[in-house]
Formats: sequence, C-alpha cells, structure tokens
Amino acid sequence: MKIALDAMGGDHAPREIVRGAWEACRENGLEVVLVGDRDTLVKEIDELAEPCSALEIVHATEVIAMDEAPAVAVRRKKNASVVVAAELVRSGHVKAMVSAGSTGATMAAALLNWGRIPGIARPAIASVLPTVRGVTILLDVGANVDCKPKHLLQFAVMGSLYAQKILGIDSPRVGLVNVGEESSKGNELTQQTYPLLQEAPVNFYGNIEGRDIFQGTVDVAVCDGFVGNVVLKTGEGLADALMKMIKREMQQSSLAKIGATLTLPAMRNLKKRLDYSEYGGAPLLGVNGVAIVCHGTSRALAIKNALFRARESVEAGLIGAIGASLHDPVREVGYVDGM
Amino acid sequence: MKIALDAMGGDHAPREIVRGAWEACRENGLEVVLVGDRDTLVKEIDELAEPCSALEIVHATEVIAMDEAPAVAVRRKKNASVVVAAELVRSGHVKAMVSAGSTGATMAAALLNWGRIPGIARPAIASVLPTVRGVTILLDVGANVDCKPKHLLQFAVMGSLYAQKILGIDSPRVGLVNVGEESSKGNELTQQTYPLLQEAPVNFYGNIEGRDIFQGTVDVAVCDGFVGNVVLKTGEGLADALMKMIKREMQQSSLAKIGATLTLPAMRNLKKRLDYSEYGGAPLLGVNGVAIVCHGTSRALAIKNALFRARESVEAGLIGAIGASLHDPVREVGYVDGM
Repeated sequence: MKIALDAMGGDHAPREIVRGAWEACRENGLEVVLVGDRDTLVKEIDELAEPCSALEIVHATEVIAMDEAPAVAVRRKKNASVVVAAELVRSGHVKAMVSAGSTGATMAAALLNWGRIPGIARPAIASVLPTVRGVTILLDVGANVDCKPKHLLQFAVMGSLYAQKILGIDSPRVGLVNVGEESSKGNELTQQTYPLLQEAPVNFYGNIEGRDIFQGTVDVAVCDGFVGNVVLKTGEGLADALMKMIKREMQQSSLAKIGATLTLPAMRNLKKRLDYSEYGGAPLLGVNGVAIVCHGTSRALAIKNALFRARESVEAGLIGAIGASLHDPVREVGYVDGM
Repeated sequence: MKIALDAMGGDHAPREIVRGAWEACRENGLEVVLVGDRDTLVKEIDELAEPCSALEIVHATEVIAMDEAPAVAVRRKKNASVVVAAELVRSGHVKAMVSAGSTGATMAAALLNWGRIPGIARPAIASVLPTVRGVTILLDVGANVDCKPKHLLQFAVMGSLYAQKILGIDSPRVGLVNVGEESSKGNELTQQTYPLLQEAPVNFYGNIEGRDIFQGTVDVAVCDGFVGNVVLKTGEGLADALMKMIKREMQQSSLAKIGATLTLPAMRNLKKRLDYSEYGGAPLLGVNGVAIVCHGTSRALAIKNALFRARESVEAGLIGAIGASLHDPVREVGYVDGM
C-alpha cells in the first residue's frame, strides 16, 4: 500500500521524516511517497544506511509554515507539500496521507481536496492519550472551537468506530467531558448533548470529569475543540512541569541523586509510556479520506507509527464504516448533518 | 478576628475540621466559631490535646450533603451549618467563613445571605494552583459554566486583585485561556473577551494555552467555569495518574526499588508542593463577603491555612477593593454589570 508523507512538515523535517518513512518501509512492506523538495529529499535518501526501493519522491516546491492561516495558505500555495499529498490521495495514487506539519493546514488540505464524509457536519481531530489503564481517544482537540450538540454526537460515533476498528477495543465506552457525573450537570452544550448520546449507537458511559481522562475511565472522551485543546495542552504542560519538579527535587541531596540514578530506567519507561510517538499520531476524523497528523516535534519513530496507523485505517475501511454509520436506522435519531 | 467554620463539611468532618481550627487559634491568635451539632463538637473539642478558649460553638442542626442541589438545599435547610455560618457573617458576629463542604452550597449560602458585590454580574470560584514557578490563580473553576465576555472581564479584575492583595504579587500578569497565542484565536467567547481585557485595568499578558497553566506563565488564568473545572480536575487526575505510573515502574526491578527508597524524601517534598492543603483553599470572588472553600478531602492543615487566608482577605480589604474597582473611571470601559 502507498501512503503519502508530507516530508517538509515538522520541527525535524525533512531528516527525521525521511527516516521514519524508511523504517516503515523496511519493517513492514509499506510504500511511502515522500512529498517535498526533490533535491533535498534525494540528499536525505542518499544518507540513509541502506537504499530502499519502496521510497518514492513527488516534488513540491512550497511549504506551509506553522503560523500561516491554514485555509488561506492551502488555497494560495497550490504546490505546498501537504496540498500535493492530499491531491495524491484524491487522484488515487496513494491511499492515505501523514503530516507532522501544521494540523490546521493538513485539515484544510484534506477538506479542500476530499471534502467531508457525506453526513458529517464537522470533521474532528482525535488525540490518543496514554492513561493509567491504556489509552483514551479524546476528540475534538481543536478543529471546532464552537460546537453544537449534533457535532459532539458525531464525534462520539467517529471516535467509537476508531477505537473499535483501529485500537481493537470491543464496545468502547464513550464519555461526555463535563463538570459533574450527574446527567443534569453541564453547560448548555453538554446538557443538550447528553440525551443525544443516550440514543446514539455507541456504548455511552455517561458524563466524565476532567480527572477521569488520564485515569482511563472511558475509551473515548468527547468534547468541543476548545475544551479538548485546552485539556490536551494542559496535560502536556503538567506532565512536563511535574518532570521538572521531580528532577529539581532529586538534585537536593546526594542520596536522592543516587536514588534518581537507580530509578533512571524506570523513569525512561514511564517517559516512553507518555510519549506521543508511541501512539501513532492524531487521526482527522470526518474528512473523506485517511489523514493522520503528527506532533510537530515528531522524530522517525512517531512518523513510522503514524504510517502504520494510516495503513490500518485504510485496511479496516474506517472511512466507509463512518459513512455507513450515518446511513443505518440510527439516522432516525438525527445524528446526521441537517438535523 | 472571628471567622465562622462549617464544622460539618468535608470528608473528614468534624474531627479534622475542629483540629484545623484549633491549630489556627493556637498558632495565630484567631478566634474560630465552629458551626455544627453542639454535642458532636463538644466531644471533638474534649479530645484535643489542650483546651483552647478561642474556639466557640454555634449550634446548627442540619448538614447539606455533597449530592444535594445547592440552591434548593440552602433554601430548604435554614439550619444547615453552612447557612448558619453565612448568617453569622451577615449579622457581623464574624468577619468571614470557611467550608470544606459542598462548594455549590457554600456559594449559594453566601449569595443568598450576602448577595453579590454591587456591579459584579457573576461570582467566581478561584483555585490557587502550584506551578513550576510558584502559583497561578485559575478562575472560574465551576460557578459559571456558560459565560459572557463581561463575566470573564470581571473574573480577570477580581483574580488580579486577589493575586495582588492576598498573594502579594505586584502587577499580576493576567492570561486568557485559549487555543492559541494569537489574538485572533479562540471560540466566540474568547475572541470577544480579548479586546475587553486589553482595555481592562489589569496587566493583560494575552492569550495563554493549556500548557502554560502549570508552567506558571501568568499569575492569573481566566476562563469560563466549564473550561476551568475541566482543567482543574484534569490536572488532579493527571498528577495522580503519573504518580501511580511512577510507583508501578519503580516496582519493576530491585535496583529501582532501592532508588525509589532513596528518592522518597524528594518525592514527599514534591507531593507537598502539589498539595492543595498548602495553598489555603479556593476563594469565592464576587460575593459580598469573604468565603473560602476547601477541598472535600481537607485535613487540619488545609483548614488552618484556609482560615489564615480568610483573615488575610478581611485584613486586606479585598471586598472593598473589588467594589472600588468597579466604581473608578474604568467604569467607562464597561466591565461592570449591565454593560
């Protein structure tokens, strides 16, 4: 299977991106189309330990920067790597795309080239978070900062399908992020969403609170993109802050320093567990094709895992499954667009 | 100075509550009025290591449970400990109140008995969070799940005054919790709030993201009560989850176990740093009197610190300062009620 990879997106592009592609090809028979400046990419490929016939280059002259307004940039820079990657999917040359560049630009390029899955009102960005029990999918984490109940309902259905088909979770528990457990709790949005989720074709757990998210109380946590974005970044910031505080405390005495050295492997394991690279990126759910975005700081491992996740999404028929979920009898409960 | 303490509120009431009051009286010449069932409280006082003449009891026959609807319960249970405590403030018998019971009930009792500070549209719950650099005040953390821009503006002013007068921070930096740093970012609420904060009588830092909150980028982080509540509880849950994961990792090898033992004092220090008990509870800002709510799990130390914080708030004239801030020329920029 061929997958397009935005080779120019991310803090460590193109080197780490190309390496990730190379590792994915060697390990698992994937074919990767690297999209970006041909000369630069040829040089990077030349520096790989071994050549790899499964790497192809498609030339793209432009790059969209992290600080550009996505919708404008995608329209203006027709030859940006992420736009060309999306076009490769549309033309059928590849089956999916992966980018560690601007999430907004990836979403915009996918939307512009593929559109939405018929019936989906708003595509969402889903993040796969490490928790005490395993992982939890949090969505939306930033595509839609102002949502209506029907949007959250669709996020629930899409997140549930992703958990089932890609993460292999049977009957994923879906929770609504709220300020209390009781069904009466919440702001206007969550109070109106609750009854819709009760009727939805998902295993609705009920309301969850912030503290449940990293405890792994549910498999899928649903919220609007404002709340999800703040939660995601609060988590990143707090984990980082805690690690800094632990380090600082452990420098306070010689015994603690020795102790810290002995616990180093354990702390490394923990770091690995918390490392987004292990989880294969964030799928864009609701666009009419498979797109995975990676953290801007992604290195080869994260890119490789995202490529695998993209392939799994294609093989599992995720897009078709989301589309089908909108055309079954559940349509009657009104969770498709235009309700 | 006399302060009323809801002796029946909290997971460890009345024992730990009474001990906290006792410690506050001994340490710092405070007089505490314990409100609750007289017989129970007399027994608790009898069990203290030393008697203390600065403890007074005011009998209250009822208690409001955590799961009761606050507004209803406060109206129905006229003799609930938290209601009686609020009445003691209104009558002038005491200067402030502290409770580790239901936050909603404390807010409702304060509102019903004291009303709002004239000009304040919505009182907020402010939480004092430990960060890498010190502490950050986050508000609102749950009183108002649906907010308008003017509410956030008032939260900013009140939070800034609290940081200045009670935490002793000169010209506190005030940040608006958002999904990006640029002024154009955000949902409807934050986009409309941004220009109001630019004109407000606070040191407006601009937008902050979730990751800034625990990094201590600003002194006061402003958001609606839905977002604040989810952030606060996500933080609690993640810190707890990380500690569990660290423990688990450190049980994996004998060397790590030895290392863990050596780092124990460092980890205890960290735990203390993260402990809400150290920070003296969450002030209710905007009600027309001083009220501090404590975490439901509060023990004596947390109660003592909250009593001190309450006294500082009275001594600093916090309520008057908030009121005055609404009557100065800034009124023209329209951040008072009815704009």
